[in-house]
Amino acid sequence: MRTLGIDPGSRVTGYGVIEQVGDRIARVDHGEIRTRNGVAFTRCLSRIFDELREVIERTRPDAVALEDIFYGKNVKSLIKQGHVRGVVLLAATQSHIPVFEYTPLEVKKAVVGYGRAEKHQVQQMVKAMLNLPKVPPEDAADALAVAICHANTGKDAAL
Amino acid sequence: MRTLGIDPGSRVTGYGVIEQVGDRIARVDHGEIRTRNGVAFTRCLSRIFDELREVIERTRPDAVALEDIFYGKNVKSLIKQGHVRGVVLLAATQSHIPVFEYTPLEVKKAVVGYGRAEKHQVQQMVKAMLNLPKVPPEDAADALAVAICHANTGKDAAL
Repeated sequence: MRTLGIDPGSRVTGYGVIEQVGDRIARVDHGEIRTRNGVAFTRCLSRIFDELREVIERTRPDAVALEDIFYGKNVKSLIKQGHVRGVVLLAATQSHIPVFEYTPLEVKKAVVGYGRAEKHQVQQMVKAMLNLPKVPPEDAADALAVAICHANTGKDAAL
Repeated sequence: MRTLGIDPGSRVTGYGVIEQVGDRIARVDHGEIRTRNGVAFTRCLSRIFDELREVIERTRPDAVALEDIFYGKNVKSLIKQGHVRGVVLLAATQSHIPVFEYTPLEVKKAVVGYGRAEKHQVQQMVKAMLNLPKVPPEDAADALAVAICHANTGKDAAL
């Protein structure tokens, strides 16, 4: 089973694809979609959508996993993130791939073992679990982490 | 010049296309995209996107206009609306149509003449301005109103 984890953001959207065979997991692909400063938000959304469609075409995941929105931020950035998530959900749904959501707590527990883990601990654990030659960049690591969370805990109910 | 006004909502998304020739405006099309209760949110997003793409294909607008998000609601529904707006902006941008935003105040001023107008006044004014045989439904009326606002005030700066 292949899972595409996505960490949506208006500046950087991380993605990571893992493959699970039995109880082993391996990395298939990971990366970050970065939008440049000064580029119109509409263009950023379009770019994120197109690149995710391309990742989906190339890697053919069976499931998409992403984190629940984190309510601790200010309302403007929550709404902006809402726009990006809308486009991310659309990219998955238009390819008929079910989407699964996990809380940040569930993701950290699945990867580091406890919910209050720091960013760099998540990065290190993702590197170790997937046997990567180096630490993945922050947003790609978060995306791989939510993919690992889905592979290991496997919710039944898609969004 | 043709303008497609959109009133995005997770339950009902209104749309309305008007044509402006000189200082006259006429209705080209209007309607509402309704999603049924119990349908997954991802499916709703996909449906809204597909139907808007179809409206754009059919009516070929030069501009898309929509209202700024209204911050008075609770955060959960703002985020949900953010998802829908993301998909709406994407539908326009993927068809290379510039998007213009107006505040609810600007829209009501453009249509009714003052910012505190009630919903039914907007519906009545839209009917009168576009010479419609009957009052359009609420969300389609809001969509036609923002299209009229764009046609009459014509912001320069797209999103």
